Amino acid sequence: MAQTPTAQTQSFQELIETLGADRVVTDPATVENYRWDRANDPDAGTPAVVVRAGTTEDVQATIRFAAARGIPVVPRGAGSGLSGGSTAVTGGIVLSLERMRDIRIDPLTRTAVVQPGAFNAEVKAAAAEHGLWYPPDPSSFEFCSIGGNIATNAGGLCCVKYGVTTDYVLGLTVVLADGRAVKLGGPTVKDVAGLDLTKLFIGSEGTLGVITEITLRLVPAQRPPTTLVATFKTLDDSTNAILSISSKMRPSMLEFMDNPTINAVEDATKMGLDREAEAMLVIQSDEPAEFATKEIEQIEALCHENNATEVFYTADPEEGEAFVVARRMAIPAVERKGALLLEDVGVPLPRLGDLVRGIAAIAQHRDIVIAVIAHAGDGNTHPLLVFDPTDADQKQRAHTAYGEVMNLAIELGGTITGEHGVGRLKRPWLADYIGEDALDLNHRIKKALDPENILNPGAVLDPAALQTSQTP
Amino acid sequence: MAQTPTAQTQSFQELIETLGADRVVTDPATVENYRWDRANDPDAGTPAVVVRAGTTEDVQATIRFAAARGIPVVPRGAGSGLSGGSTAVTGGIVLSLERMRDIRIDPLTRTAVVQPGAFNAEVKAAAAEHGLWYPPDPSSFEFCSIGGNIATNAGGLCCVKYGVTTDYVLGLTVVLADGRAVKLGGPTVKDVAGLDLTKLFIGSEGTLGVITEITLRLVPAQRPPTTLVATFKTLDDSTNAILSISSKMRPSMLEFMDNPTINAVEDATKMGLDREAEAMLVIQSDEPAEFATKEIEQIEALCHENNATEVFYTADPEEGEAFVVARRMAIPAVERKGALLLEDVGVPLPRLGDLVRGIAAIAQHRDIVIAVIAHAGDGNTHPLLVFDPTDADQKQRAHTAYGEVMNLAIELGGTITGEHGVGRLKRPWLADYIGEDALDLNHRIKKALDPENILNPGAVLDPAALQTSQTP
Repeated sequence: MAQTPTAQTQSFQELIETLGADRVVTDPATVENYRWDRANDPDAGTPAVVVRAGTTEDVQATIRFAAARGIPVVPRGAGSGLSGGSTAVTGGIVLSLERMRDIRIDPLTRTAVVQPGAFNAEVKAAAAEHGLWYPPDPSSFEFCSIGGNIATNAGGLCCVKYGVTTDYVLGLTVVLADGRAVKLGGPTVKDVAGLDLTKLFIGSEGTLGVITEITLRLVPAQRPPTTLVATFKTLDDSTNAILSISSKMRPSMLEFMDNPTINAVEDATKMGLDREAEAMLVIQSDEPAEFATKEIEQIEALCHENNATEVFYTADPEEGEAFVVARRMAIPAVERKGALLLEDVGVPLPRLGDLVRGIAAIAQHRDIVIAVIAHAGDGNTHPLLVFDPTDADQKQRAHTAYGEVMNLAIELGGTITGEHGVGRLKRPWLADYIGEDALDLNHRIKKALDPENILNPGAVLDPAALQTSQTP
Repeated sequence: MAQTPTAQTQSFQELIETLGADRVVTDPATVENYRWDRANDPDAGTPAVVVRAGTTEDVQATIRFAAARGIPVVPRGAGSGLSGGSTAVTGGIVLSLERMRDIRIDPLTRTAVVQPGAFNAEVKAAAAEHGLWYPPDPSSFEFCSIGGNIATNAGGLCCVKYGVTTDYVLGLTVVLADGRAVKLGGPTVKDVAGLDLTKLFIGSEGTLGVITEITLRLVPAQRPPTTLVATFKTLDDSTNAILSISSKMRPSMLEFMDNPTINAVEDATKMGLDREAEAMLVIQSDEPAEFATKEIEQIEALCHENNATEVFYTADPEEGEAFVVARRMAIPAVERKGALLLEDVGVPLPRLGDLVRGIAAIAQHRDIVIAVIAHAGDGNTHPLLVFDPTDADQKQRAHTAYGEVMNLAIELGGTITGEHGVGRLKRPWLADYIGEDALDLNHRIKKALDPENILNPGAVLDPAALQTSQTP
């Protein structure tokens, strides 16, 4: 039941008075910008207000206000989410953490204390000033917030060797559904006192609490990598190469691009990629110099054993970076061909070939283009479903294929989401993937921590199913 | 209200019929062996029966039987726990997983599927057959079970570089408090579908479910390490050296022994350790050969800068291992001096010196011996409180000191337990450490998943506090 803007503003008057008009946006044109994240959820609602919190106390005041009135709160970082985890709810509050961007590095303990709105790239840069490194590197690292990374347990390219976000989080400050702020974990590397609540909030997509401060573990700066690029005439050769490489060594990057991706990147960059190749791999080793060369030469041999048509490697970091940029450009390059639905299904590595072949079959059957890039070393793929948004039929076929790709991943023993989160777009597939019993555990924990379903309602869990599920 | 053995046997008849007499032990002499883990909890009860489960279905049947009758179930691996997490409850069931020891290695995906009763050392050995490595290495690795490692999120010596148990667990099968068996996570390295329940069960000490199968991530075999040993005349010099080493590089081991430990080990081994030294460090680098030498030489220089009295290093793995064995021998060596209370408090690294000095002050004040060993690179220490068990007053002073050491760790911004778990012995200190709000979250989740408090009641959480805590 939509309220008129004036009525809305009036009912939020108390919040405006508490936080100051500067922090509560009611102007409809600005509010409009906070309806969607990068998933462009077609079912996005229109929030009543946007709160741009500056402090943990602002977040507490907002949630207390909302909890007292049963108003939904959708937390939001930089809005770069790909599963609709920050899709706005009509009449609700979008709680933006974009202004909370402090970063403090302690080189002695190699930790960073960071506010959620800081960009991943800003954390990396601040760490680098002290010769330190924050590894997790989603492709969006230049414009995604660290809070969003925590909310989705984001991955990236280096995870194949260095793990994902959760592996670098030591502690959190979280504002709970009743407005209490609780500190979890802390600066000690080992800590097993009570349930591992820190890990529980990581990847909870704003459904259990709002993260307002994060303590991160940093590691010494990465050594400059040696980069190898290999092209393959057939998909099978490339997936065989991936399997034989990753069962024998531990590259610091192992990325895959299929033929449609290679062509889209070549269209955009004219860098001379082989348009006939069915697959291209970009692989890095960051071992100490001679060992990197040795590792890369072993990888080169394995590529040749698997019939690579061309293999090239370079220890020059800038030259190598050009190929990584090509890989990172894949999404914008494919995006030039139409609107995108972006997947992140993953499978156990031996099934990677089956997944990529199955996706090609879905693309053919639904008569749409699906370009596939993959963090191949993790078995984590990004099928990019391309469609013309003005062609209703094609759009529908793309949405059908989006579900079919997830069904295929489940069939192959894989996951519906490796690093983007369930959000709202993947929610219908969650039960099929994790099963009713695991879903029941999700419901129980959500109800225990947010009984009124104030926090990001509709993300991850179906509100109706949540309400009807048994509580112990 | 204690039942007579006959009445007990009768009331467990149905369980015996379901599982077979072979799997349900009622013989009092055998049952007696299952009352304690290595913590020797003075308040241990006497269980009615011990179930030695052979399958997930056995565990399900046991828990269903117990749930229907409100009988407590204490899960137990190898009984090597140090905080009383497996202390038996009078009239309850001890559910031993010691017979469930299968280990299957998949070298292609570098994963292991393991039953909880398998020893850590057995998992390491099975992985090594394929040139692979399971890193977590609690000092008890030769006689602790992998299930217990998961239950406590166990650490060890290599964690300073390679992380703790949770970093290697991809998936779990867990039997819940109502007897359902649920599969969580799986073989994919990246998976963010729904709450991270796998991580929630890790470190939950058997209070949320019983783990019956584990999927572990393995890594390529570790390179043979170069080992450095340094002795220091003063404690401060050693802790300064630790801080300057660990802020600059990433050794694969950084262990500390104080003067009482050095002397206890020297008494036991006669290996020629410096009995006058206030501290000794054992440090390893597992970088590729020349880089290990370079790293160790940098460490050597930092030790000298911090006034080390003697520094010695060797690239010979066997010679190096002798010093690691000395370090691993610390606990049995100190144990020869009396009964032990074994702590595992941790602090942020810059407070390590304050912690060790504070512990020495507590030892002096309470007139007992406290030997301190530490996984120094993690700030995780093991104060070993020695007392004569026949001297009631000394025993009491040791128990008082045990609490004072935890209070000191909390004061210094550290944790009451870095890797052993809260169990029953550290439970009284949990609220002071994590705070009432985090404790409330523990209560909520426990109630959501085990509303009748069937699973390991009395471990981690106080049953009375649990009952009176507010449920949403």
